[in-house]
Amino acid sequence: MAMKKLGKQTVKLQNPPVILSTGTTVGPKEGEGPLRNYFDTVLSDDLYGENSWELAESKMLRESVKKAIHKADKNISEMDYMFSGDLLNQLMSTSFAARDLRIPFFGLYGACSTMAESLSLGSMIIDGGYADYVVAVTSSHFSSAERQYRFPLEHGNQRALTAQWTVTGSGAAVLGAKGIGPSISYVTTGKVIDLGIKDVNNMGAAMAPAAADTIVNHFQDTGFTPEDYDLIVTGDLGAVGKEIAEEMVLDKGYNMTKVYNDCGLLIFDNQVQDTHAGGSGCGCSASVFCGYIYKEMIKKNLNKVLLISTGALLSTTSAQQGQTIPGIAHAVTITNRLKG
Amino acid sequence: MAMKKLGKQTVKLQNPPVILSTGTTVGPKEGEGPLRNYFDTVLSDDLYGENSWELAESKMLRESVKKAIHKADKNISEMDYMFSGDLLNQLMSTSFAARDLRIPFFGLYGACSTMAESLSLGSMIIDGGYADYVVAVTSSHFSSAERQYRFPLEHGNQRALTAQWTVTGSGAAVLGAKGIGPSISYVTTGKVIDLGIKDVNNMGAAMAPAAADTIVNHFQDTGFTPEDYDLIVTGDLGAVGKEIAEEMVLDKGYNMTKVYNDCGLLIFDNQVQDTHAGGSGCGCSASVFCGYIYKEMIKKNLNKVLLISTGALLSTTSAQQGQTIPGIAHAVTITNRLKG
Repeated sequence: MAMKKLGKQTVKLQNPPVILSTGTTVGPKEGEGPLRNYFDTVLSDDLYGENSWELAESKMLRESVKKAIHKADKNISEMDYMFSGDLLNQLMSTSFAARDLRIPFFGLYGACSTMAESLSLGSMIIDGGYADYVVAVTSSHFSSAERQYRFPLEHGNQRALTAQWTVTGSGAAVLGAKGIGPSISYVTTGKVIDLGIKDVNNMGAAMAPAAADTIVNHFQDTGFTPEDYDLIVTGDLGAVGKEIAEEMVLDKGYNMTKVYNDCGLLIFDNQVQDTHAGGSGCGCSASVFCGYIYKEMIKKNLNKVLLISTGALLSTTSAQQGQTIPGIAHAVTITNRLKG
Repeated sequence: MAMKKLGKQTVKLQNPPVILSTGTTVGPKEGEGPLRNYFDTVLSDDLYGENSWELAESKMLRESVKKAIHKADKNISEMDYMFSGDLLNQLMSTSFAARDLRIPFFGLYGACSTMAESLSLGSMIIDGGYADYVVAVTSSHFSSAERQYRFPLEHGNQRALTAQWTVTGSGAAVLGAKGIGPSISYVTTGKVIDLGIKDVNNMGAAMAPAAADTIVNHFQDTGFTPEDYDLIVTGDLGAVGKEIAEEMVLDKGYNMTKVYNDCGLLIFDNQVQDTHAGGSGCGCSASVFCGYIYKEMIKKNLNKVLLISTGALLSTTSAQQGQTIPGIAHAVTITNRLKG
């Protein structure tokens, strides 16, 4: 077995790369939610001065990257790589931002699992000695996602109660080889899991088995249990998916109840904001992690967190062809590193 | 600077991962081209027994992976990671293949640069000690790409002379930490470059500046010159883009004429096959590299090759919004490793 592997799906980083800083940009609705004070920039208009929602999303991603690099007291040219993806076809948000930033760029697609995917690859590339600084980033935008995947917004269609609300948000993290602070210590890479869900209005249920599979593999590979964590947080399973994942993990002998939450439930107040099953989208776990969780780790209110970003790998074409929805989930352990 | 970095964009692998085997599947038209004898499987029908071209493409990718793993005398369960992407929205080809293969999976999107992107990340992950075996793979399919990006095939529209023909093909490579044979010794990661081309029927011209930028950076970072290579081969610039790239690299003082070719020109005989500016698509550099180039390296007819896969990061949405076409190119050096 490769020297840095633990079990089948997990890697232990020898010198856990430090998350030196984060940058976040969110839309107006996210700025009205319970985490409002954790975000760097809250837009008053989700077009962000651009001519289309897609370009607005791209600007959110680009500005989040710039904000994070600035907070790390670095220059863009010092970044060795950018690992990024988004939900738009051909990564329009990411590609146009990467063009402006001119950082050597690896494009990723993991649907809403992208934040953990980018942190996973970025941290291995740093720990392996191939980079000093890496940016990991992703974005989503309610309006660009809604019209690409569902209906024209002008249609004003009714939403199922199991449906989730795509977060307008971007979160960027600058990882570095040295420093103190929240650091990526373990990476558990997911397999694609598909238990046959076809309901495109119930993505939480489609992604839950993949989340459960990755979490259970993480525990088995590392020997950790839920008690080792201050917080275990999935990306965007929402209310329906969270319950399923929790039960599937319990079935394998791990009770997460005391420490388990979901970014899609943290970002909105569903009683007030009418977001049905909760938030979703790449930007959900990205903004909640880079905003709320990272800042609580800096304050030492959280010291060990398992972030599991969750993606539904469907397309409009696969849905129209009657296919089921494959899911994937990638997990990273973030530990407060107290010495440099 | 990170210990394994050379210059700004290049990494030197300490223990160059070996390409243990490859697997290729191509469509009927590719099977009539000059490289026909280099492919493992030539389909007689581009639906490959499936109900849609997208599912056929996914099967091509899956079967190429299985073929490569079988030829490496390994089992699917021995693969630590699969690095893969394709041109379809939300990576339908890759996602459905990864579901069946159940290998821990990193989804990539680099448009037609994906083969070099997957070889780049796969080789760093192995060299870094995180994996023993990795599969790098991608695919494209003329019919699935044509209807997603351009027109319904039934429309029978006329094609511009600068237009390229999307290759129906998949190429998979199994990389391993140990062994002898063609090995990945350098990785040069591209930046997104956009010189303002808007013509979606001239992707070669849109990608050429990115290819030239990556090639020049590779030479500057490593100190290599074209004379160090037996073959320098771009992914799918075609006739128009190849000429532009060659001239742009020459402008920087590197004359590649004697050793430079393009996978899009190698795979078809344009005199007979009416492919206009040449082949394109992720599957172009994937099948030409995994078929022709790899097998010529095994025979020692080629001993040092620079593969630069080239991607145009446009989407139908970005084109409809009047945006220009960003390009990216990733390069890997493959050297015959004579000792284990």
